[in-house]
Amino acid sequence: MITPLPLSVWKDMADLALREDLGRRGDITSRNLFNDTDTATGVFAARKDGIVCGMDVATYILEACAPGIKLTRHAKDGDTVKSGQPLLTASGSVIGLLEAERSALNFLSHLSGIATLTGCYVEAVAGTGAKICCTRKTTPGLRVLEKYAVLCGGGVNHRFGLDDAVMLKDNHIAASGDIGRAIDTVRSRIGHMVKIEVEVETPAQLEQALAHKADVIMLDNWPLADLPAAVATIGGRAVIEASGGITLESVRAVAQSGVNLISVGALTHSAPILDIGLDFT
Amino acid sequence: MITPLPLSVWKDMADLALREDLGRRGDITSRNLFNDTDTATGVFAARKDGIVCGMDVATYILEACAPGIKLTRHAKDGDTVKSGQPLLTASGSVIGLLEAERSALNFLSHLSGIATLTGCYVEAVAGTGAKICCTRKTTPGLRVLEKYAVLCGGGVNHRFGLDDAVMLKDNHIAASGDIGRAIDTVRSRIGHMVKIEVEVETPAQLEQALAHKADVIMLDNWPLADLPAAVATIGGRAVIEASGGITLESVRAVAQSGVNLISVGALTHSAPILDIGLDFT
Amino acid sequence: MITPLPLSVWKDMADLALREDLGRRGDITSRNLFNDTDTATGVFAARKDGIVCGMDVATYILEACAPGIKLTRHAKDGDTVKSGQPLLTASGSVIGLLEAERSALNFLSHLSGIATLTGCYVEAVAGTGAKICCTRKTTPGLRVLEKYAVLCGGGVNHRFGLDDAVMLKDNHIAASGDIGRAIDTVRSRIGHMVKIEVEVETPAQLEQALAHKADVIMLDNWPLADLPAAVATIGGRAVIEASGGITLESVRAVAQSGVNLISVGALTHSAPILDIGLDFT
Amino acid sequence: MITPLPLSVWKDMADLALREDLGRRGDITSRNLFNDTDTATGVFAARKDGIVCGMDVATYILEACAPGIKLTRHAKDGDTVKSGQPLLTASGSVIGLLEAERSALNFLSHLSGIATLTGCYVEAVAGTGAKICCTRKTTPGLRVLEKYAVLCGGGVNHRFGLDDAVMLKDNHIAASGDIGRAIDTVRSRIGHMVKIEVEVETPAQLEQALAHKADVIMLDNWPLADLPAAVATIGGRAVIEASGGITLESVRAVAQSGVNLISVGALTHSAPILDIGLDFT
Amino acid sequence: MITPLPLSVWKDMADLALREDLGRRGDITSRNLFNDTDTATGVFAARKDGIVCGMDVATYILEACAPGIKLTRHAKDGDTVKSGQPLLTASGSVIGLLEAERSALNFLSHLSGIATLTGCYVEAVAGTGAKICCTRKTTPGLRVLEKYAVLCGGGVNHRFGLDDAVMLKDNHIAASGDIGRAIDTVRSRIGHMVKIEVEVETPAQLEQALAHKADVIMLDNWPLADLPAAVATIGGRAVIEASGGITLESVRAVAQSGVNLISVGALTHSAPILDIGLDFT
Amino acid sequence: MITPLPLSVWKDMADLALREDLGRRGDITSRNLFNDTDTATGVFAARKDGIVCGMDVATYILEACAPGIKLTRHAKDGDTVKSGQPLLTASGSVIGLLEAERSALNFLSHLSGIATLTGCYVEAVAGTGAKICCTRKTTPGLRVLEKYAVLCGGGVNHRFGLDDAVMLKDNHIAASGDIGRAIDTVRSRIGHMVKIEVEVETPAQLEQALAHKADVIMLDNWPLADLPAAVATIGGRAVIEASGGITLESVRAVAQSGVNLISVGALTHSAPILDIGLDFT
Repeated sequence: MITPLPLSVWKDMADLALREDLGRRGDITSRNLFNDTDTATGVFAARKDGIVCGMDVATYILEACAPGIKLTRHAKDGDTVKSGQPLLTASGSVIGLLEAERSALNFLSHLSGIATLTGCYVEAVAGTGAKICCTRKTTPGLRVLEKYAVLCGGGVNHRFGLDDAVMLKDNHIAASGDIGRAIDTVRSRIGHMVKIEVEVETPAQLEQALAHKADVIMLDNWPLADLPAAVATIGGRAVIEASGGITLESVRAVAQSGVNLISVGALTHSAPILDIGLDFT
Repeated sequence: MITPLPLSVWKDMADLALREDLGRRGDITSRNLFNDTDTATGVFAARKDGIVCGMDVATYILEACAPGIKLTRHAKDGDTVKSGQPLLTASGSVIGLLEAERSALNFLSHLSGIATLTGCYVEAVAGTGAKICCTRKTTPGLRVLEKYAVLCGGGVNHRFGLDDAVMLKDNHIAASGDIGRAIDTVRSRIGHMVKIEVEVETPAQLEQALAHKADVIMLDNWPLADLPAAVATIGGRAVIEASGGITLESVRAVAQSGVNLISVGALTHSAPILDIGLDFT
Repeated sequence: MITPLPLSVWKDMADLALREDLGRRGDITSRNLFNDTDTATGVFAARKDGIVCGMDVATYILEACAPGIKLTRHAKDGDTVKSGQPLLTASGSVIGLLEAERSALNFLSHLSGIATLTGCYVEAVAGTGAKICCTRKTTPGLRVLEKYAVLCGGGVNHRFGLDDAVMLKDNHIAASGDIGRAIDTVRSRIGHMVKIEVEVETPAQLEQALAHKADVIMLDNWPLADLPAAVATIGGRAVIEASGGITLESVRAVAQSGVNLISVGALTHSAPILDIGLDFT
Repeated sequence: MITPLPLSVWKDMADLALREDLGRRGDITSRNLFNDTDTATGVFAARKDGIVCGMDVATYILEACAPGIKLTRHAKDGDTVKSGQPLLTASGSVIGLLEAERSALNFLSHLSGIATLTGCYVEAVAGTGAKICCTRKTTPGLRVLEKYAVLCGGGVNHRFGLDDAVMLKDNHIAASGDIGRAIDTVRSRIGHMVKIEVEVETPAQLEQALAHKADVIMLDNWPLADLPAAVATIGGRAVIEASGGITLESVRAVAQSGVNLISVGALTHSAPILDIGLDFT
Repeated sequence: MITPLPLSVWKDMADLALREDLGRRGDITSRNLFNDTDTATGVFAARKDGIVCGMDVATYILEACAPGIKLTRHAKDGDTVKSGQPLLTASGSVIGLLEAERSALNFLSHLSGIATLTGCYVEAVAGTGAKICCTRKTTPGLRVLEKYAVLCGGGVNHRFGLDDAVMLKDNHIAASGDIGRAIDTVRSRIGHMVKIEVEVETPAQLEQALAHKADVIMLDNWPLADLPAAVATIGGRAVIEASGGITLESVRAVAQSGVNLISVGALTHSAPILDIGLDFT
Repeated sequence: MITPLPLSVWKDMADLALREDLGRRGDITSRNLFNDTDTATGVFAARKDGIVCGMDVATYILEACAPGIKLTRHAKDGDTVKSGQPLLTASGSVIGLLEAERSALNFLSHLSGIATLTGCYVEAVAGTGAKICCTRKTTPGLRVLEKYAVLCGGGVNHRFGLDDAVMLKDNHIAASGDIGRAIDTVRSRIGHMVKIEVEVETPAQLEQALAHKADVIMLDNWPLADLPAAVATIGGRAVIEASGGITLESVRAVAQSGVNLISVGALTHSAPILDIGLDFT
């Protein structure tokens, strides 16, 4: 079960994207070719296999461009679809359909691309107990939607921003010195509802992080061979996240080391789109 | 020579992305660890070979987070860089640097990824006379910046939106019937500063588009083998754009057919990032 | 046939204008005089002869102020109306009607004023083949609506902004020197969907513009007596626009010289309103 | 002495107008012709006699487009200028100057047009004691600036919106019935800082308005011949405003009847621009 | 009779407050616990005696979070309610209800707190003829709603901002010198629809304000014993406002001195909330 | 050490509040009384003992209204000040100072009021080990600033919104049934960086919450006498928060029961302002 996001958290971005395409006067091609009252029917369909994400945004854009449009959904966010499978049938104003087409497709194909890539990683670690997790390496302006796409692909979400959990990363540690003291300082000042994660690069740093009771430990760029020992050292005292250049080829081996989470920046920063198109019938 | 974009066209997007990461109270890790007056120096550097894009956005974000920060640029948009090559040195508030880091990197690596992929296509067609062109298949909210990244990679820009040129695409033609009449109708109603492009799928459509004097003709998904004949038919009467599933592998052959432009949606919808990082010194 | 603009391109301006009039607490006169449930009927009617423009904006404002208001349109954008002719009947909340009245009328009368003045110019050149064209000398914030009003009056639109076509104007040429080289430089760098217009003040400049294949040539402030020779020189090699201090008195003579377009800044910067009023029945 | 408006009340409108002209990527002509470092000097000068208004907006736009531009003002808001007289010299980035040019001129010429027309009315009533006043018939989005332009022309301001004073107009009275009861109802409910004006069309309405102690009485569309009697009837018991179709020809006669204020909608809804231009030197 | 405010003057603030609570992804508790289709019914009820204000804002927020929610109002703004009395019953989406709950309650309890405190002051002066008035000491961002809450509590409104009436306060007078000249200067320059209030601290200042015909005189921090003499001095020549540290204990004595208005900053800057809660049934 | 908030998280609210007071044309009193070049010096000073908060917002507003103003801070956020103690000296434009005055004071006095009230609670529990915590019962639009004020008063922050931690409150539990299953469901679906708090009203609920390993347990409205037993039951297995109608009188007794946190809604929903004023010198 995936609960869709509230409209208010992505409405502005959908409006912005639509205006970006409509520009100052909308589709001058269709507005100078068709009448306001002309209608058409089109079907949005997948042109590759993948996982769908972005149905709410697409329908929002279609309704914004073509008030009164009739929409029938054939799939929902998180569904696995085959090439050729219809996702959405839309009947309404030709001008509205043509003005909504590209904006709706850009969201659908981008978000479905992320869900699909996430799904590949999730499948690769099936049965190991490890979860696939996203990062803050998201496309500017689209973080909330992209993190939702990761959920649709079967992954889990990491922090949404710098403000919703503490994460002592490499540069924080470089600038502050001692990991243990850094953990203690931050813990003494943040609220009781905030977790602390620490990025460690060496066994010595790992020991410090454990001694100062980090809630989560990120093993950043650890050699695969060293992971089992690190997992053993931690021994359930903290949640374990592995990170750093993990690919579809290497992810299963990492998962089998016993880590709890594997975070993959590429899910949101380098996923190719899922090809989706609209054809008039 | 690439003239950077005016600040006003991307400032809102940079602010939006920054707020997305800062959330309600900024980086709670560094704000609870460092003092306002603590400083540091960091270097943004490429971690892969590629073409740089986004220097203005990155410096804008750094200055927004750390007023008074000292910035030294080692590269400019459009430069080809090697892995390890420094792009920008920043000295100023630790908190400011850590709050700007991810947002600045997300823009830099996304835009440089597009410039880099564009550069690969441009290199692939070197000497053929064909130009590499982007589409409206851009990431929602980032169109203007992504089209600029295409320029930095050596490509050229197609329409910026539905309103700045006429393009009779498949669905327009499907809904309106006859191509020739559609061209005539639109021409009679649009201004004298607007060009008309027509997407054709068959030789018969091509003849019609030529007969009705389209400024630009897009050969959409034509078999490679049929391109030379189409180019010959057109015989200089219109600008020729080839489009549809063209890859780095196939692009040179397409270019050698004599088309003027090759448009590639993947430049903006599926480019992986260029890996860029920030390290404190 | 005039296709109305998409709501999204003028909604913000309508909201802004309405808030400008409502201020912090709406019409304190009617809010302290009537009950929320009091209703009235009013008729918007022309008080002078002219061409109507702005019906969508007016109805949007009425519906925003008086949800559920019953509106009956008696005219549509582009219609020629006589003094006294009703345009719109509105029945609903008294408070809503009185709060919408001035904002709705300000749009209707301003845009209809532009359509009406345009119509006068269009009528003056009837039968000559020349078209009447607007400029970028528009009222700040209202460009899109004003250009639409020009269409409603029978005119055509020039550029919508600095970014949708190239126009080498006097100051561009003064700063860059040689017209021919300027055209070549710009053409080599802009996309294939962009036209180039050049403003020429002398026969020598005209020759250069033609030699370098400008798409459109603007004869700026040329003496009426010199226009026929310039038109002959161009001989169909470029679209011809005449501009500069052309009035209702002089416009027909200019049109008869054979130019294709006559651009008139006054259409949008100096049109008096068309007087329209609202009377309760 | 005219105190300029605070920046914050017109900044958004200036930004909106500028973006309207810059579009998605600024002036593609100058950006593809000049380098970022090229500079030029231009002079804004009046091309007709008139009164200047809008210097702050113009300089704001120039500084926004060309950071670091050197500006020298030769006139200030409210100054009477002659055709050819320089208003402002600007030295800085060519691209910046060309991007600011039209937006700056559109504000300057529109606002100076209003100031100039106001000045004509003010001059026409010189010595009579009557003041020239604007209305709420302003151009959508520009009310605050236009009312400031009226001040620059020597006029005075009426209400800024529906919320800053009470005005019982024709439709309020039509819907509420008895004028006297309407005045009493509103007075009992509004605050002590709010004045009440009543629009009267007949001597009987005038008597009622006086009996119920309206602060201001508007004689709406009264025949010129009836004004002296109305003024005598009022006898100093209320401020008197005359309104309705008053022109430059008739305004002095109206003023001589002894009214305190003459409100003229045309000041803001139908003033032609003052022609102002920018020439590079 | 209290006419509710137009939606447009508080909609942005309601949206802002709601987004402040929803953050990036809404209520992660209910979104991970319930289905989109789960429903519930809840009753908003007073938990203390007081006066209700904010019903429109609360229902707006509920409808925004739970489209299609069924709402039944049991009270309206300005009603006096008893502890335990239901105000509003809401039936709809569980997730929507839980997402709206706190934002709706924060408005309702804050505004009802102001109405309730105002009601206490109004009751304390009952029968004296003095009115209770608010100030500009309001909570940032909420002025319009808070002034409306004062009306709901039986009070009256003072200025809504620095721009809708003239008020010569202590610092204006300190900086300008002579009160009389200050009044004359301002009167000669402002419009005819604007009243002038003067704050006086001594009998000498009072005489000056009267001599120069201030519309309203504020006796700021005058000793209670001196008020009757000041009232007698004024003798109906100006409206009289008393101000400065007046409490529920002292307000009746002030009112009995004969002043027309008593302004109390605490109504809006220090009112405790009225406790209101939501319980599911 | 309290690190001030980043400007970007409260800038919009400061701008909104300022515009609310400036309205359409700023302070018409000072703008019609002084010249743009007139200057003055004023001192912001406490008029009651308390804790200061809001210095950054106040200086931002002063600089926005009076560019170039000279500001000297005599106190910083979190400082305890005495009545009469100066906080800030400001020298600059008279008009600017008078336009900034009320907006700056409204923020300063509201936020300092919250800091001061928090300080009273913190002092009341000194030595007990319990911390004073705020809630989401904040003033609409001001949550981030109010939570910062709580820090300045020595308190700690709870959740900033519905999205940054899980909290199973009374209505969640009423709607979902079994506490244990609710905890398990939510935990299985949220990310690893999110804590779970559960509100319990009975010992049975407490046992369930412990059995299902809630991170934090809120004892909501528990009788004081029952707290020690609950604390003993929990025995360090969860962080303990007490809540519900706790006053300055009762808070120390609650703290002595051994709970870790005491949350007090009144800190942000019912704190009276700290009286702060501005006097010109």
